[in-house]
Amino acid sequence: MSDKEAVRQANRGFYDAFETLEVEKMERIWLQQPHIVCIHPGWRPLSGWGPIMHSWERIFDSTFEMKFDIAEVQLLIHGDVAIVVVQENLTQRGYDGVAKSTVLATNVFERSGSEWKMVLHHGSPVAMPRDDEPPIQ
Amino acid sequence: MSDKEAVRQANRGFYDAFETLEVEKMERIWLQQPHIVCIHPGWRPLSGWGPIMHSWERIFDSTFEMKFDIAEVQLLIHGDVAIVVVQENLTQRGYDGVAKSTVLATNVFERSGSEWKMVLHHGSPVAMPRDDEPPIQ
Repeated sequence: MSDKEAVRQANRGFYDAFETLEVEKMERIWLQQPHIVCIHPGWRPLSGWGPIMHSWERIFDSTFEMKFDIAEVQLLIHGDVAIVVVQENLTQRGYDGVAKSTVLATNVFERSGSEWKMVLHHGSPVAMPRDDEPPIQ
Repeated sequence: MSDKEAVRQANRGFYDAFETLEVEKMERIWLQQPHIVCIHPGWRPLSGWGPIMHSWERIFDSTFEMKFDIAEVQLLIHGDVAIVVVQENLTQRGYDGVAKSTVLATNVFERSGSEWKMVLHHGSPVAMPRDDEPPIQ
């Protein structure tokens, strides 16, 4: 498998773990190191394993169902680091009903042995409505 | 100068260029390559030199003054790529008066000869009010 294929698989693995709503699955995605950073849309930055995994527990606890349709904006690989910019078209069902939204995310992975592990997730809302948008470039 | 110092200087250079509101200064910061990506807070992603530089012109045209106070959240360097996550405490004066806001940004730089050039800027708003926030970790 090429590095690009492996990184795309790791990135897809992140969204698969997200959809399961199981923190144990999410734990397998991230590098267990103090330098990891996670920015959920609109949240302040979280650093390190404990705060980041706790945030996933909070999100998963308040969500019944989450589905992602992912469009790749850019994928850059430099040696042992990979940066994936994606548009997440997101449908979620929680306590307050079903919501569709669009999130832009920068996901950074580091090569760790034969795997690519997440070290940064920066998600942010897009202001413009999804249905009126042209397809991304 | 260490790589960390050089990357911090490049990152500071981005905000210095931003504060000048001159697109010529911003052009010196970015790598002139098709793979560059820029996400302004709430905007859709822009790719490539033309669209990104045009977006800076639009922003600079509608701004009278812009000041950044930057707090580093994380800095990662892997060979020829560097990822800087920052909190931008931003004061801007435009047609509609003075606004203070907080933006989180992931800035990615690539080593190009003896320089570090920007290849990704992903800025996003923080929902929580700035004055009530604890200092970042």
